[in-house]
Amino acid sequence: MDKAFQDYYPDQTSYCYGCGRLNEHGLQIKSYWDGDETVCLFTPRPHHIAVPGYVYGGLLASLIDCHGTGSAAAAAYRTESRPMDSAPPLRFLTASLHVEYLKPTPLGVTLEIRGRVKDVKGRKVVVEEWIVAEGSVTVRGEVIAVQVPEKLWSEITQPEIG
Amino acid sequence: MDKAFQDYYPDQTSYCYGCGRLNEHGLQIKSYWDGDETVCLFTPRPHHIAVPGYVYGGLLASLIDCHGTGSAAAAAYRTESRPMDSAPPLRFLTASLHVEYLKPTPLGVTLEIRGRVKDVKGRKVVVEEWIVAEGSVTVRGEVIAVQVPEKLWSEITQPEIG
Repeated sequence: MDKAFQDYYPDQTSYCYGCGRLNEHGLQIKSYWDGDETVCLFTPRPHHIAVPGYVYGGLLASLIDCHGTGSAAAAAYRTESRPMDSAPPLRFLTASLHVEYLKPTPLGVTLEIRGRVKDVKGRKVVVEEWIVAEGSVTVRGEVIAVQVPEKLWSEITQPEIG
Repeated sequence: MDKAFQDYYPDQTSYCYGCGRLNEHGLQIKSYWDGDETVCLFTPRPHHIAVPGYVYGGLLASLIDCHGTGSAAAAAYRTESRPMDSAPPLRFLTASLHVEYLKPTPLGVTLEIRGRVKDVKGRKVVVEEWIVAEGSVTVRGEVIAVQVPEKLWSEITQPEIG
């Protein structure tokens, strides 16, 4: 299997609670291309509860968030026609997040988070997303992602994780 | 100090990862009235990282989410002019969540999540919110919350938390 988008993130931006491979307490989601869409599979843990039997909405928002910024990065590399391991690195932060909870998302199954890039404009990428549980779309969302400013890169250092 | 909104939730709806007092793995946020606004104080943990030094956006979305549904419940009781420990219980779920990340939120300080009820209409409550870190508003959000349907109450049972 190909490396996930998140596996190309530079170390100093790989501590994100949602998608950083170096945050051992985090969700460590993995996103991939699937044709012109992006996809991430994630199985919520038993304590990720909204009301018992259903997945916590804040977790679903987190999946939309990080799969969105990952999809934005992948799309930006595609737009520049270069691989994700080429320099300079392109990494995105979330400017805004919108999530619609269409129906309760069942807990105990693997969720499919899918994304489609709507727009790439300069440093801004808009990604629409949806979450599928047991064949049914339970959540729709949209992320507006912006490229990490150069000046922020120089400020980012190794964190202390308690 | 008064009991928090979340301390009035019936046991079977107190397992939410964000606000359930019975979810030992969760965030267990606590929300209160402050005049006509609502307030919640929360200190993110060291692993709640976006990029090092800043708070994870999915956590901020989770705080907006659960402080929003808590504020919605409190507002619904106020609208009916009855205390939160009176029957029948009023408990809300999130229909939609919108979060704007205005600037990075510093990690390592206590955040103040504030809410203002914009509209109470039948079973639907709209809450606007903002997050203050070190005196500066870093996040704005809005939650549309809907009252838990009666038929769902009967389906909710004790969860198994791994």
